[in-house]
Amino acid sequence: MDKQELVAELLKIFGPDGMLYAPEDVLVYEYDFSLDKNLPEAVVFPSTTDQIAALLKLAGDNDIPVTPRGAGTGLSGGAIAVRGGVVVAMARMKHLLKLDVPNRYAVVQPGHVNLELSTEISPSGYFFAPDPASQKASTIGGNLALNAGGPHCLAYGTTTNHILGLEMVLPGGEVVRTGGAAPDRPGYDLTGFIVGSEGTLGIVTEATVKIMKKPEAVSTFLALFEDVGAASDAVSAVIGAGIVPAALEMMDQLTIQMVEEALQAGYPPEAGAVLLIEVDGFQENMDELTGTIVGICRDNGSFDVKSATTEEARTKLWAGRKGAAGAFGRVAPNFYLHDGVVPRSKLPEVLRRIGDIAKEYDLVIANLFHAGDGNLHPNILFDARVPGVLPRVMEAGEKILHLCVEVGGTISGEHGIGTEKQEYMSWIFSEADMETMKKVKEVFNPEEIINPWKVFPTKKSCGEISLKMRLLKSLPNMDEAWI
Amino acid sequence: MDKQELVAELLKIFGPDGMLYAPEDVLVYEYDFSLDKNLPEAVVFPSTTDQIAALLKLAGDNDIPVTPRGAGTGLSGGAIAVRGGVVVAMARMKHLLKLDVPNRYAVVQPGHVNLELSTEISPSGYFFAPDPASQKASTIGGNLALNAGGPHCLAYGTTTNHILGLEMVLPGGEVVRTGGAAPDRPGYDLTGFIVGSEGTLGIVTEATVKIMKKPEAVSTFLALFEDVGAASDAVSAVIGAGIVPAALEMMDQLTIQMVEEALQAGYPPEAGAVLLIEVDGFQENMDELTGTIVGICRDNGSFDVKSATTEEARTKLWAGRKGAAGAFGRVAPNFYLHDGVVPRSKLPEVLRRIGDIAKEYDLVIANLFHAGDGNLHPNILFDARVPGVLPRVMEAGEKILHLCVEVGGTISGEHGIGTEKQEYMSWIFSEADMETMKKVKEVFNPEEIINPWKVFPTKKSCGEISLKMRLLKSLPNMDEAWI
Repeated sequence: MDKQELVAELLKIFGPDGMLYAPEDVLVYEYDFSLDKNLPEAVVFPSTTDQIAALLKLAGDNDIPVTPRGAGTGLSGGAIAVRGGVVVAMARMKHLLKLDVPNRYAVVQPGHVNLELSTEISPSGYFFAPDPASQKASTIGGNLALNAGGPHCLAYGTTTNHILGLEMVLPGGEVVRTGGAAPDRPGYDLTGFIVGSEGTLGIVTEATVKIMKKPEAVSTFLALFEDVGAASDAVSAVIGAGIVPAALEMMDQLTIQMVEEALQAGYPPEAGAVLLIEVDGFQENMDELTGTIVGICRDNGSFDVKSATTEEARTKLWAGRKGAAGAFGRVAPNFYLHDGVVPRSKLPEVLRRIGDIAKEYDLVIANLFHAGDGNLHPNILFDARVPGVLPRVMEAGEKILHLCVEVGGTISGEHGIGTEKQEYMSWIFSEADMETMKKVKEVFNPEEIINPWKVFPTKKSCGEISLKMRLLKSLPNMDEAWI
Repeated sequence: MDKQELVAELLKIFGPDGMLYAPEDVLVYEYDFSLDKNLPEAVVFPSTTDQIAALLKLAGDNDIPVTPRGAGTGLSGGAIAVRGGVVVAMARMKHLLKLDVPNRYAVVQPGHVNLELSTEISPSGYFFAPDPASQKASTIGGNLALNAGGPHCLAYGTTTNHILGLEMVLPGGEVVRTGGAAPDRPGYDLTGFIVGSEGTLGIVTEATVKIMKKPEAVSTFLALFEDVGAASDAVSAVIGAGIVPAALEMMDQLTIQMVEEALQAGYPPEAGAVLLIEVDGFQENMDELTGTIVGICRDNGSFDVKSATTEEARTKLWAGRKGAAGAFGRVAPNFYLHDGVVPRSKLPEVLRRIGDIAKEYDLVIANLFHAGDGNLHPNILFDARVPGVLPRVMEAGEKILHLCVEVGGTISGEHGIGTEKQEYMSWIFSEADMETMKKVKEVFNPEEIINPWKVFPTKKSCGEISLKMRLLKSLPNMDEAWI
């Protein structure tokens, strides 16, 4: 099917107001927040499940690649139309369809923006717990595709713990429903399987999500340490004491200094590392719990603790953490953000060795991460215009991920594999493991109509070729980014 | 392959000490705690993954049905060798392979008994959270096959929330690994998919499980109500207040009276309903939290609250709840225990209508259930020797499950589908939904070598035939059963 025919067919489904196809119009849909990009032939904006079913029937019958897209804030290339074809932008399917407070769930369309969902249901006293740093822009659909995390996922669990049921359209246009509002449903847990599948199984058109009661009280504070080793020890000690704070975030000195310069969040630039800690629960418990954690931090070398006593101060502390990516943009025109996971007990060793890698490749690497989960976010800061810097960036990044695997961790905590880490999948999965996953994928998406060439290694993504492809691409300049 | 050849091949793998094949020896492996039974040709007791791989190679090459079995406490027939063949009893693969306290996980073999795991790791201050009433006998393998619940799963989540990774052998003998100790791993969530698949995808040979810190303090109490309607309102009010107790169990008057007569657990026979409530956490929080819940109960009509102030009193209260099935056995020679789920807000209506069903079919139905989850366990008490009683029991059971679905719930919370509820699957899943699940099953277990004829409707299980088959079987007399 040539482009003219494709456009004619799409117009029948979406009408002129429901799609874009002029090259200049689809240009902004060629990239997300990853390093890759590719131009789709058309972008459609469905309003209904029926439209998506009609599209996927057309796509299945004519082998047209279809790539779903939320807000495009993904960091691993999941929303890139690597095979061209049609991008399905979910921006119009953004409605809250049902709110059932007594039974604690909501039904939403996938284009609903994460933070707006919590804002919308806020009068009921409830919220949606997953809070990726992108939450002001990223959508429930994107969050569930990548099983997004966020600072508060330490206590509340990642997105998969908050998705109860799904409606999804398969290639060919068949609509399936999985799970539902009732807990612990029988049959295979397809809902949990689809969450985190990076949009490679079908297009989700509706999600039943768990909602949580807002805590009565929140206490937020910043513990200052000489170095990341001491801060890591404090993390292990807090968790070891059986305390699960709502959030437990670490930033190293470079990150602190850049954040402070850019945002004046109240982070002391002289600290070698800080822990941003939040606990929530009942009012009468706050002082005791905060006291216990502060005591543990001091026992592990924290030389000062700054508490946010007002809502304004609390917001400021979080603005520093969530705005870190923007702060990096002031220091270097480009950054490459990695996402590895390590056992908590290996944090000091891994951070030391990341420092060694930075020296070896003569790069600046700032670390901020979800310390409670052992989910690292090392940021390689660089200027892509400097000749020869890109291969060093890519190699250093690869070494960091390899280090994570070496100590018993893994290559991605929450940003996904997408097009970015396909070639590293073999580090953590055997051929048999990957074959099993691919066979399951084929049940849903046998011809790779939906989101093709993602997650699993492809010929395209093998070694040299992929690296070369990436080096040939210019890196986007990010004003604001999401970590 | 005839039985003699099969035995000869099995002896090569398991040796004479690792198997049973005399009809009188395999007899005790023909049933579990469900209504169905069937005789296997042999029972093997593997000690290693290699032995299971060799068995599944043999089975795959020769179309021999293989049924894995934990402790045989399942209530839906999952461990019944419905196609005969080989039962794989996991009793010897019961070891704790690794305990990593700093990173909060353990690696266990599937034959490890649930409660013994918590006992074994207890000196570290940690425990394994899922606590089905069968926990003194049931195994981690059985728990994960059925995604077992338990009173404390209200706060801690069902088994799936506590399984981080698996090793599993497929038909043909291939060994795959899923997940692992690192949180939030990339790739499809096969671990979550396998948990709850009722042993129909492969035989799990190793599980990496989350361990939790034992709470500093526990408070257990019994709130007495005039009727189940008032108790249900209290449940909704507690949850609505944003409180998630560690456990929130309800028993109706019939259950209370039978439990009290059998066990003297301290349940007042004059109460129309009781809530057994447990909260845990920090010592200094207990009084306040208990006070809040007691206040909510009183506001919703609780006329008395009995607190367990000693460990002995606490154990006694729980003994009543966990020993309920045994108490039923004193009143009627048989009982049929159902397992439905309803939205919490529908509890009063559903309990009233279960009362109507009891009257309509002239049956005694006692209710005890995980109220916080809306997971009902109606128990139909009867004497199978009374002519004509069985069809009434089966029909009333079916009506109760249908009622659960009608109000927006589902047909099983934690006991599984097995052979018991295959014909009801179409009530909650469309053909497309079931086809999708079956196709995924075929990826793992295409010839139904492992645990055949379970979960999905088969020709064998259609309507009349299945009911007739069951009626022809004598019901076992259970001294102790698991709810």
